[in-house]
Amino acid sequence: MTQTLPQCQNLQDQVGSLLQLLHQEPSLRSTDVTPVKATLGKAISPTFEIVFAGAFSAGKSMLINALLERELLYSAEGHATGTECYIAYAEPDKERVVLTFLSEAEIREQAAALCQGFTASTNLNQPEVIERLRQGCQAIIQQEGGENRSERAKQAKALDLLLEGFVANRDRIHTVNNHTYSMEQFDFSNLQEAADYARRGKNSAVLKRIEYYCNHPLLKDGNVIVDTPGIDAPVARDAKLTYDKIKHPDTSAVACILRYAKDGDMAKEETELLETMRGNPGIRDRVFYVFNYIDITWFKPELRQRLDYLINSQFQPPTRVYKTSGLLGFYGSLLKLEGNSSNRWGLNTFLAGVQSPHPFVSEFIHYCTTAGKLSPSQFRIVVHGFDTPNENYVRILDEWGTPLINQLIQDSGIEEFRAAITRYLTEEKRPQLFANLADDLQPLCISLQKHYMAVQRELDSQPSEIEAMKARQLELLNQELQQVAKEFLALHNREMN
Amino acid sequence: MTQTLPQCQNLQDQVGSLLQLLHQEPSLRSTDVTPVKATLGKAISPTFEIVFAGAFSAGKSMLINALLERELLYSAEGHATGTECYIAYAEPDKERVVLTFLSEAEIREQAAALCQGFTASTNLNQPEVIERLRQGCQAIIQQEGGENRSERAKQAKALDLLLEGFVANRDRIHTVNNHTYSMEQFDFSNLQEAADYARRGKNSAVLKRIEYYCNHPLLKDGNVIVDTPGIDAPVARDAKLTYDKIKHPDTSAVACILRYAKDGDMAKEETELLETMRGNPGIRDRVFYVFNYIDITWFKPELRQRLDYLINSQFQPPTRVYKTSGLLGFYGSLLKLEGNSSNRWGLNTFLAGVQSPHPFVSEFIHYCTTAGKLSPSQFRIVVHGFDTPNENYVRILDEWGTPLINQLIQDSGIEEFRAAITRYLTEEKRPQLFANLADDLQPLCISLQKHYMAVQRELDSQPSEIEAMKARQLELLNQELQQVAKEFLALHNREMN
Repeated sequence: MTQTLPQCQNLQDQVGSLLQLLHQEPSLRSTDVTPVKATLGKAISPTFEIVFAGAFSAGKSMLINALLERELLYSAEGHATGTECYIAYAEPDKERVVLTFLSEAEIREQAAALCQGFTASTNLNQPEVIERLRQGCQAIIQQEGGENRSERAKQAKALDLLLEGFVANRDRIHTVNNHTYSMEQFDFSNLQEAADYARRGKNSAVLKRIEYYCNHPLLKDGNVIVDTPGIDAPVARDAKLTYDKIKHPDTSAVACILRYAKDGDMAKEETELLETMRGNPGIRDRVFYVFNYIDITWFKPELRQRLDYLINSQFQPPTRVYKTSGLLGFYGSLLKLEGNSSNRWGLNTFLAGVQSPHPFVSEFIHYCTTAGKLSPSQFRIVVHGFDTPNENYVRILDEWGTPLINQLIQDSGIEEFRAAITRYLTEEKRPQLFANLADDLQPLCISLQKHYMAVQRELDSQPSEIEAMKARQLELLNQELQQVAKEFLALHNREMN
Repeated sequence: MTQTLPQCQNLQDQVGSLLQLLHQEPSLRSTDVTPVKATLGKAISPTFEIVFAGAFSAGKSMLINALLERELLYSAEGHATGTECYIAYAEPDKERVVLTFLSEAEIREQAAALCQGFTASTNLNQPEVIERLRQGCQAIIQQEGGENRSERAKQAKALDLLLEGFVANRDRIHTVNNHTYSMEQFDFSNLQEAADYARRGKNSAVLKRIEYYCNHPLLKDGNVIVDTPGIDAPVARDAKLTYDKIKHPDTSAVACILRYAKDGDMAKEETELLETMRGNPGIRDRVFYVFNYIDITWFKPELRQRLDYLINSQFQPPTRVYKTSGLLGFYGSLLKLEGNSSNRWGLNTFLAGVQSPHPFVSEFIHYCTTAGKLSPSQFRIVVHGFDTPNENYVRILDEWGTPLINQLIQDSGIEEFRAAITRYLTEEKRPQLFANLADDLQPLCISLQKHYMAVQRELDSQPSEIEAMKARQLELLNQELQQVAKEFLALHNREMN
């Protein structure tokens, strides 16, 4: 927030003059100008952070991948790490990753929070000390019957990973500073390799932050996508990271990914998230509510009704609400971009791997047979239970290809969400930020105007021998105020257009 | 726990004599006999409560329905009520329901916890007071943008339902007592009608407890199934009910329904549940771990691997672990019992209703096409995407009928779970309870024996003139102890066989 958009330098000076005028008048000096300063900060900031937040396995990473139309983030079942993840713009061929490590002091702090026996005198640089601590962790996990069997075992597991990560990355961890490393220093040739490194448990345990610089139009104009740990993460520190980020003044918008369709209800952490967002004046109405896993509602009519009722009664326009299937939308988009019969519709490329059938293939067949989304006259799809899912998948796409893929993408809701967020970030964002600033400045200008008029009336009522002096002074004040207002108006109009 | 099995009356007396002997000896008096008393209580109790616990929408109610092979409990998406639900045995034609209402005092207490403005002087018996409070609740919900938008709105909604329920059931709610009503007093003709009444929000808000008496062999011999609110229920009081029940001495076994397959990880509340169970000495190893929604893992190979790893590493035998699909298992069982081509395989009966397609129909087709569970040589199933799900469902069952249904039930894991729980409750439970008692009594008997032997040695070392007296006294003590031990052994052997 210390940096400023170059074209906004004037704006900052002008608002500064206005606030100075306010400060010069004893009767107006006590006006709270914090909101104006915050709004100004947003309007002139070169970056605009949109934070993706939600419960674990709400599908945040898959949705970000779908927005960016590439498999950037690792989206797997279960809990992800507690590493903050930033995605910002890069020119083509300038894509890169920057990894920021925890300092030894931060690691000590976390270790102490996880383990009562860990004190200020514990020396992490003695291999035998680490070895002894890790053996202790293993013993606890064993004793409790496994890392999921008790809170104590969970904490032992977390400490063990932290220590393993400390040893594995020892030379990258500084005593008190957070060292950063570029992907070249790691010999990573692309973003994916860096992501693979970062998602391994021991590494992610000692990574504070990971920044991806990607070439995607959505990220232009300083837009930064932030992925966060689940608000219900089992390690309390991870969940706190997300809430802290939601409260942070740098956060300008939130994509709130809701797991309603999977759970059948709002989790209490989700309600808490909605409240936390309202508490940050930097977010205002810049919230995108995304009900993910919408495909589940296609197969459960009662659930669909309940979700529709929830949205109609509690998420009315102008609230921005989207219903998406990250899975169908992301792989559907890849199919459209890359899939064709020569790579067996992705089975040889992005759908290849240890998972067979790939969850997308299975969900695709479910969509084709039972979702009730395909016109029976347009698509005459037949699925053979005696063929493998992959065989059915290839045969269906060979037969129905592009129109089916287009319909799938449309039903996934992902294009609507992508279009809305793109429109917001590229067209609506700046004018809205300036409008917000104008709105916040208006009451201050009115106060100033009223004050000057009162002064004028008072001067008018005084003996006329000092008329000339009075007139001169008033004129000066008036000019000054008018000049500031004019400049501000001009800049405002320029930005609005 | 105040009642006793008639055939166990002797046992109680005998253990009582043993404890009295212990109490007579000053050196042994401080022995903690609480565990023995608790174990004795379990062994002679006429009831055996098995509590179903888990997160919301983990599928507890559906699994209970599947166990009892009937749609007894309402199993819907989302949060159920905070009413405790007991299911006990009834002779045929003696099936009934007993509803227990909160008292006015309890309702006042809950209202005060939900609303700060609610004080001791608030008069619930003045309609205008209730009206004013309810208007206040509605205003809060409106102001917050809906009942899910904030904790405050959630509490206002809960208070509103409580007050609505109080008004609707005014004449059934006593000032300080919990009134009970039979289903005849409500003119309900069967259990289902009572369940329908109880699940309506306003009624469930003022119901403390609902007892179903059902004719099912599983419930014989005093077995009671207890359904509980989700451990992560959004109203803290509801979740507390479940934890309290898990800690309660009456709880003898737990069916712990885990949502891992749906979430992809253990929720922190689930780990807390495991710990709470370990803290209750009345439960011991009588825990059935049920990984429900197993069908989801059929379509997600990576998830399946992770679940298998979790079970292999943290839920080793003799831990009782089951993998079930409540949905497929329950409706599969009904299909086997009632379904046939004349009622369109349940579509005219138990699958009829507002939901079309019924979630079971949709999941059935998914199972037939993509689960990889059906032998391609045995079942040659074809699904037409251009037919309705119901048309496909009927055609498939007309063609493959019973063998397909049997395979489906087997894959649902429900029969294995039902068989295990039935075997435990009908064959293993009593011998195990007596074995537990014998185990707990053993150290006490050894202490007594050692003590008497020490006394004997001491007496031996004393002047012999009182030899006759000593011998007489020792003989008496010896006889007494032997008699008690003999009676206990006889009863134990009788019960074990």
